[in-house]
Amino acid sequence: MNVREKPPMFELSAWSALQLATVERALTRWIACPDFAPAPADLGEAMRYAVLDGGKRVRPLLVMAACEAVNGNAHAALRSACAVELIHAYSLVHDDLPCMDNDVLRRGKPTVHVKFGQAQALLAGDALQALAFELLTPDDESVDAATQARLCRMLARAAGFQGMAGGQAIDLASVGRPLTSVQLHEMHRLKTGALLQVSVMMGAACGSSSPAERDALRDYGAAVGLAFQVMDDVLDVTGDSATLGKTAGKDAAHDKPTFVSLLGLQASVEYAQQLRVRALASLNSSRLENTHALHALADMLVNRAH
Amino acid sequence: MNVREKPPMFELSAWSALQLATVERALTRWIACPDFAPAPADLGEAMRYAVLDGGKRVRPLLVMAACEAVNGNAHAALRSACAVELIHAYSLVHDDLPCMDNDVLRRGKPTVHVKFGQAQALLAGDALQALAFELLTPDDESVDAATQARLCRMLARAAGFQGMAGGQAIDLASVGRPLTSVQLHEMHRLKTGALLQVSVMMGAACGSSSPAERDALRDYGAAVGLAFQVMDDVLDVTGDSATLGKTAGKDAAHDKPTFVSLLGLQASVEYAQQLRVRALASLNSSRLENTHALHALADMLVNRAH
Repeated sequence: MNVREKPPMFELSAWSALQLATVERALTRWIACPDFAPAPADLGEAMRYAVLDGGKRVRPLLVMAACEAVNGNAHAALRSACAVELIHAYSLVHDDLPCMDNDVLRRGKPTVHVKFGQAQALLAGDALQALAFELLTPDDESVDAATQARLCRMLARAAGFQGMAGGQAIDLASVGRPLTSVQLHEMHRLKTGALLQVSVMMGAACGSSSPAERDALRDYGAAVGLAFQVMDDVLDVTGDSATLGKTAGKDAAHDKPTFVSLLGLQASVEYAQQLRVRALASLNSSRLENTHALHALADMLVNRAH
Repeated sequence: MNVREKPPMFELSAWSALQLATVERALTRWIACPDFAPAPADLGEAMRYAVLDGGKRVRPLLVMAACEAVNGNAHAALRSACAVELIHAYSLVHDDLPCMDNDVLRRGKPTVHVKFGQAQALLAGDALQALAFELLTPDDESVDAATQARLCRMLARAAGFQGMAGGQAIDLASVGRPLTSVQLHEMHRLKTGALLQVSVMMGAACGSSSPAERDALRDYGAAVGLAFQVMDDVLDVTGDSATLGKTAGKDAAHDKPTFVSLLGLQASVEYAQQLRVRALASLNSSRLENTHALHALADMLVNRAH
């Protein structure tokens, strides 16, 4: 007689595959789709090149996982997931421009300005940001107006001068200058943390949750967002360009302060693990039940190889 | 005995001065104000430089005038006026970058990238776009959620690939190529027309109006938006840089198709006047009563010297 093991409760790979199929379909349809809403000249092509067929889609997965945890409106979450990814994608397009990081490789492909020219890349990034807010405000009954307004408010703040753009400004100002641990944390809290955290909070905003649950998700998002950046710094040192799909070692080449340059490699890896534990503790402290995906994502983000 | 003339019903200059004082105060307070919401590094300074202390504020005036015509929520209109102006300002900052028009003079001052560097100018533009949507979604009771969502939807669409950014892409693709009248109209309908028209429609969305009234305002906005661009092309030829506050003659220098290159100077001036008449006829066909400011703005935009 066979003794069969109890199947695992939650398989991240299967869950992610399902979510990502939905997200990719939606992005393909919603980004200047030639069949539905074509863009003039090469603009649509540049926008689609910047977003489709690439990327880990960490932010969309966080949105969908948080929406599941609060049993929220899945359609609102799908729109939020795509909107957050558009903001992320536009920031990469602009970041890669010669006047910023001047990078030529992204997601294993030539960067947008290498392929379409700088002016088109600039416009494509601008148009992607606008499209993010368009996706959040469908002119139908699928997402109630209060949720639409709340999602726009959250995303605008996380993307703007008190979020991602603000973090990039600190980054610009800090090249070649030693940062203290406090300054480095502040830069990353804004530059990458704000958008990762708001992914969690937008997912949560697609349903209802208690203030205590929102606090727990906010802490989870902060810890996961920081852990993600710490691992990014680690992988920039230990990874190679082929695995990362982007130029490795560029932090050191640009003389940028990183967690590795501040703490050293081993301590950075340990720090990421501590942040993972902190993220899971936040989830466990809440009464939220369906947090399997959020748990598994925290594990995956810290143990990833790219 | 003195015969006193009846005072004029409506004085645009007095009305504008009042509106602009309110708009400038709001912009000063809302754009990364150091006292309320400072931005990191030089970002806030660059954002404020891009917007404050300059500009004709045509779009904010159209918002406020349309809101008056429907007797709408003045606070929602003020936020809309500022949001539209931020989108306009960010587009100028990005347009002036070396990879686009490479312009050094704007509103009589060095352009943002000349003063703050290209990277900071890029970020400031990005942050201004995000801030526009933040302004439209205040976290209080001042603007109801349905209006917030509607305003975001309208602005996102007008700014994005089916609006301003799309028009700029056509512009990019058309340098040095002759455009037909249809193509030139399409470019300007998107590039400048969409944001001018949505200014009118967002003002209207701050109150209630009948479908027929909205149609009339939409036609007014389309005509005024086009007239504005025709006059821009005229002034680029007839004006001087000091009066315009920006580099004159740059369309011809960049070999850009314009209404003047297509129709000639005199016919362009006449075309602008026809569009003014069309805009006023749209207003007059509606049952809207308080359209003094919209009337006067149409006159002003066509008869301006800068």
